[in-house]
Amino acid sequence: MNDVIRLGLAGFGTVGSGVAKVIAENGELIRRRTGKRLHIKTVLVRNLTKARAFDPGQETSFTSDPSRLWADPEIDIVVELMGGTTTAYDIIEASLNAGKHVVTANKALLAERGRPLFQLAGEKGLGLYYEASVAGGIPIVQTLKESLAANRIEKIVGILNGTANYVLSEMTTSNLEFETALEQAKLLGYAEADPTLDIEGIDAAHKLIMLIRLAYGAHYPFEQLPVTGISGVTSEDIRLVYEFGYRLKLIGQAREVDGKIEAGVFPALVKYTYLLARVGGNYNAVRVEANAAGPLMFSGQGAGGLPTGSAVLADILSLVKCCGKPDNTGFTEIALPDADILDPDLAVAEHYFRFTVADRPGVMAAIAGVMGELNISIAQAVQKGAPSGRGVPIVFLTHAARTCDVHEAVRRIDAQDFIEAPTVHYRIL
Amino acid sequence: MNDVIRLGLAGFGTVGSGVAKVIAENGELIRRRTGKRLHIKTVLVRNLTKARAFDPGQETSFTSDPSRLWADPEIDIVVELMGGTTTAYDIIEASLNAGKHVVTANKALLAERGRPLFQLAGEKGLGLYYEASVAGGIPIVQTLKESLAANRIEKIVGILNGTANYVLSEMTTSNLEFETALEQAKLLGYAEADPTLDIEGIDAAHKLIMLIRLAYGAHYPFEQLPVTGISGVTSEDIRLVYEFGYRLKLIGQAREVDGKIEAGVFPALVKYTYLLARVGGNYNAVRVEANAAGPLMFSGQGAGGLPTGSAVLADILSLVKCCGKPDNTGFTEIALPDADILDPDLAVAEHYFRFTVADRPGVMAAIAGVMGELNISIAQAVQKGAPSGRGVPIVFLTHAARTCDVHEAVRRIDAQDFIEAPTVHYRIL
Repeated sequence: MNDVIRLGLAGFGTVGSGVAKVIAENGELIRRRTGKRLHIKTVLVRNLTKARAFDPGQETSFTSDPSRLWADPEIDIVVELMGGTTTAYDIIEASLNAGKHVVTANKALLAERGRPLFQLAGEKGLGLYYEASVAGGIPIVQTLKESLAANRIEKIVGILNGTANYVLSEMTTSNLEFETALEQAKLLGYAEADPTLDIEGIDAAHKLIMLIRLAYGAHYPFEQLPVTGISGVTSEDIRLVYEFGYRLKLIGQAREVDGKIEAGVFPALVKYTYLLARVGGNYNAVRVEANAAGPLMFSGQGAGGLPTGSAVLADILSLVKCCGKPDNTGFTEIALPDADILDPDLAVAEHYFRFTVADRPGVMAAIAGVMGELNISIAQAVQKGAPSGRGVPIVFLTHAARTCDVHEAVRRIDAQDFIEAPTVHYRIL
Repeated sequence: MNDVIRLGLAGFGTVGSGVAKVIAENGELIRRRTGKRLHIKTVLVRNLTKARAFDPGQETSFTSDPSRLWADPEIDIVVELMGGTTTAYDIIEASLNAGKHVVTANKALLAERGRPLFQLAGEKGLGLYYEASVAGGIPIVQTLKESLAANRIEKIVGILNGTANYVLSEMTTSNLEFETALEQAKLLGYAEADPTLDIEGIDAAHKLIMLIRLAYGAHYPFEQLPVTGISGVTSEDIRLVYEFGYRLKLIGQAREVDGKIEAGVFPALVKYTYLLARVGGNYNAVRVEANAAGPLMFSGQGAGGLPTGSAVLADILSLVKCCGKPDNTGFTEIALPDADILDPDLAVAEHYFRFTVADRPGVMAAIAGVMGELNISIAQAVQKGAPSGRGVPIVFLTHAARTCDVHEAVRRIDAQDFIEAPTVHYRIL
């Protein structure tokens, strides 16, 4: 590539204007570091007359014609920042077919429809980079692709969604109910008007699919990933969990168990002494357990125009340096194999249970009896005074148990007449 | 390079055998990730008859002749893991002159005598990589060189020495005296028989010099860096600091202040709510404040054969991928400029003071008077009951003050007749 790297941007929202701002502010430094000048030549937008949050300057032209990105021989790299899984797919596919490297921040697209795109990029020897798509400004993609390339990854545990982390953190530190914390997140711009993707764990699941690809070089179909969000979390559980020395976090986890991959997104109890438990606010964090490097933790801003823009620019500069030999997945195979997935029912973990029961004799024994029948061993049991008059909470923390046994225990126990509200249960990390 | 990458190792201690172990254990995975087989062809050792902690196998030959590393045309990369700043220098210089890429874990060498080696490597277009030399398994070198290449680095704060962190953490959590905690560190293998380099901050200072080079592209002479170790830290200060909501950590910090670099290694009070304060045991951590990516934190094992070996292998695999265009410093200049250093006397920070005074009227007023004369503004002041009968402790936490004023205040106050022991003072992060 030349001394000037010409970029074509698809989309000019928060991230697109973030990229332009970082180039404007740090362009001289980027030049000193890399010898290259970055120039946003063309920006694709839907509405040409809309006012822009940031003016990239006279050298940048706006267009509503996508083909001006990939048909322009001067453009070195197409940067897809528009989101969505249809038009964005077509633009990336067309750009790769036209011989352009692609950088994207689009986790939904790469998680749900990434496989053919990675294959196309691999066949063409082109870059398809996506540092910005996982955990924003945290360089976890580069770390897994390069820095940990000599490691078997035993486990990845992430706080992968800043909105959910903000809501749970506020529920914990400010004693808020879920709805209040969510409203506060919306007011601060940490949650969208429709927060479903963030709150229900979908966004974290997209990122986890990418992390699995990077850690294990395997394709884990998005629709097979077990995902539980945080919309059911109550302030009562947040308080109880806290009393036991834990914090409740929305976790995305993948690990190797007997050669198979066990993965999922779920709210989980994290011991307060773990650094992960301390990652509050709208921050993201990823803990990696690698068989040589040992346990590593990374935390930072998972969203926002500048952090995400920084990650987009890291990809652009990596592509500039790669001498035409990009490494998209961290593995040499052009088509990655299917992941060998552990049946989620057989996943083993410690659990937290909260039963809401009638205050009468024999209840604790009945619950413990069902647990025993299903080989779920109890580590701690506490019966609390009733907080609401609606029933007495009994909390069990268990030793490691299979997910199918946990579900069966809840099914059997919730069928008892002393149960006054559906049982709540979470994994413990 | 070919499909087999042939390595020449100088040194086969903890790190050297760690590298060999990781290759033995993860070789197939490395092959799947990179398409390359790593082969340790030659190992340079001082004593050929000494028993080895790990047998790298029949394909590896041992030698006591350094020239067999650089004179062997089959060797692609020379890996210097012997330590020291003389023979190691000669080996790296000869290897670069012979056209070999070099990977090293030698922070002392690169901090104290790195400048001509980087210049030589730059002139020859060869790699001189050193991920393992800063914070062991934490990929901070790669992160600063690549992932944050589009960022101005506002500040780097690190817990850069595992031994010192272990000692301070044990003093805090187990209420130990300095000497007891240090003995315990020795028993566990976390401290060497002569722990001076670790305890006096020299090792952290070496790493900070490298971080400054990576963040600012500038040469900060090692001998000019202000360095204070932890050998004077008492359990009394650990306790007092804790009561104020801080943890005492050995910190290496560099930041840009008015276009100049302010840097140093010193024990400092870190607010307990900061993740850095929570990094305990023998772990390392680096916090980077980048103007686009925002604040990032990385933690992990800073030493040990496998974590350091993992970092050495990351460098080797990066060199294999760099297509003969290595990036050693993260800047394009072959000769990096001298750092523009802020006079350490003018560094501004909040401070903790502990005065040991006679229990009589007017003392607090006298101390506060001196502080006032020197424009040191007091944020909190606490007088404690005497713990030992040797004098009453008075603790001041101040607002931001210049280092020269802090020193002058201590000089003036310690000259008073009511002072019963030398005043202790630490920076607050």
